[in-house]
Amino acid sequence: MSLSKNQLKLITSLQQKKYRTKNNLFIAEGIKVVNEFLNSNFKVEQLLCVDKSAYKNIENITVISEAELRKISVLKTPNTILGLFKIPSISELKNEGLILVLDEINDPGNLGTIIRLCDWFGVNQLICSTNTVDCYNSKVVQASMGSLARVSVVYTNIETYLEATNLPKYASLMDGENVYKTVLPKNAILVMGNEANGISSSVLKLLKNSISIPRFGKLQQTESLNVATATAILLSEFKR
Amino acid sequence: MSLSKNQLKLITSLQQKKYRTKNNLFIAEGIKVVNEFLNSNFKVEQLLCVDKSAYKNIENITVISEAELRKISVLKTPNTILGLFKIPSISELKNEGLILVLDEINDPGNLGTIIRLCDWFGVNQLICSTNTVDCYNSKVVQASMGSLARVSVVYTNIETYLEATNLPKYASLMDGENVYKTVLPKNAILVMGNEANGISSSVLKLLKNSISIPRFGKLQQTESLNVATATAILLSEFKR
Repeated sequence: MSLSKNQLKLITSLQQKKYRTKNNLFIAEGIKVVNEFLNSNFKVEQLLCVDKSAYKNIENITVISEAELRKISVLKTPNTILGLFKIPSISELKNEGLILVLDEINDPGNLGTIIRLCDWFGVNQLICSTNTVDCYNSKVVQASMGSLARVSVVYTNIETYLEATNLPKYASLMDGENVYKTVLPKNAILVMGNEANGISSSVLKLLKNSISIPRFGKLQQTESLNVATATAILLSEFKR
Repeated sequence: MSLSKNQLKLITSLQQKKYRTKNNLFIAEGIKVVNEFLNSNFKVEQLLCVDKSAYKNIENITVISEAELRKISVLKTPNTILGLFKIPSISELKNEGLILVLDEINDPGNLGTIIRLCDWFGVNQLICSTNTVDCYNSKVVQASMGSLARVSVVYTNIETYLEATNLPKYASLMDGENVYKTVLPKNAILVMGNEANGISSSVLKLLKNSISIPRFGKLQQTESLNVATATAILLSEFKR
């Protein structure tokens, strides 16, 4: 067996969101990440790998050459396997525990890191504004290191969502309350804003509380922490 | 004026550590990052920019075309200016406050993020093992967003350093003490290990204390947090 022209065309097309949506499929690569999805509720559509001996129980498996894998891989160093998985249907929104809301996160690496953090800190629900980068984008899937297999992600109108929920809502801002001096509830919503512009004003007016990570460096620069780094520290504060 | 053949050769060579060391120069790019170095103790060797009107007080300035800038830039979207700065001579090691020691960090993005964190949290001294990626590597300089201009970084034999100092030493491990339940001193050394292998055994045996960030996710995977993310949370814990 090897890769057909149609398979090649399909896989390449999945680099674009419209074809992921049309085919209801996304790509995961490498042994670790593929295994995370195989061991989850995600449904595998097809595996393409250079050695199928480790995947005996999977039906739709195609053995391809290293050269073919390099052709379809987005990784610098392709790691023996590429899987096509079905995008799951949207599950019901969870409305308790710690919920993270993202307002227009653009960078795939940032979203991947944030998904990994949600997995680590047991965030119950990740809610993304519709203009946040797609979580099934290959770069996000790989940066999340397979954590996407365990984190519930929903894209929705976050203004509508925030208006409808009664949980206490916290905006991450540059000039909010010192997070180290704030008593944080167990059930809460934390909102993180865009890399360059922060939280949009239409979202901000729906948030009653704000928190900040104090700066300890000597110079008070306008510089902020990277959004993924700030998310790490704030999730840690909610959970500690 | 425009770029000479020799300038082009020099600038391109600075992508390699041996030529940075030989010429005692490194590259910083973009308005924000270049300005951070201009406003610091770093000495500028030369600026190359497409519009020099904003840099009237600088002597060694060459106006180049956008096309020339694209030729010498390592950025996807070059931002009007590239500066050559002198690598400073090694300053005396500070031995109080919070000190961060890195044991073989390989990824330039991780080191850049960690330098930015040291700036934010006012880490007094960053000490890197000699096999840690060079902080004057372009990718590190750009990822640190100019924070390198304010953080004291020294490369040295970290075993020798750790043996000689009396400050309490903390290893960041997967199975250390719960950091949320640990009372952390103000003057201390935190050691972070390599992305894949953690802290090397020869370093680990010199560290009396260990700390971990507890995992709250449902499944106890072997997966760890990214080293820059873990550094963010641990520095926050030392400083809060």
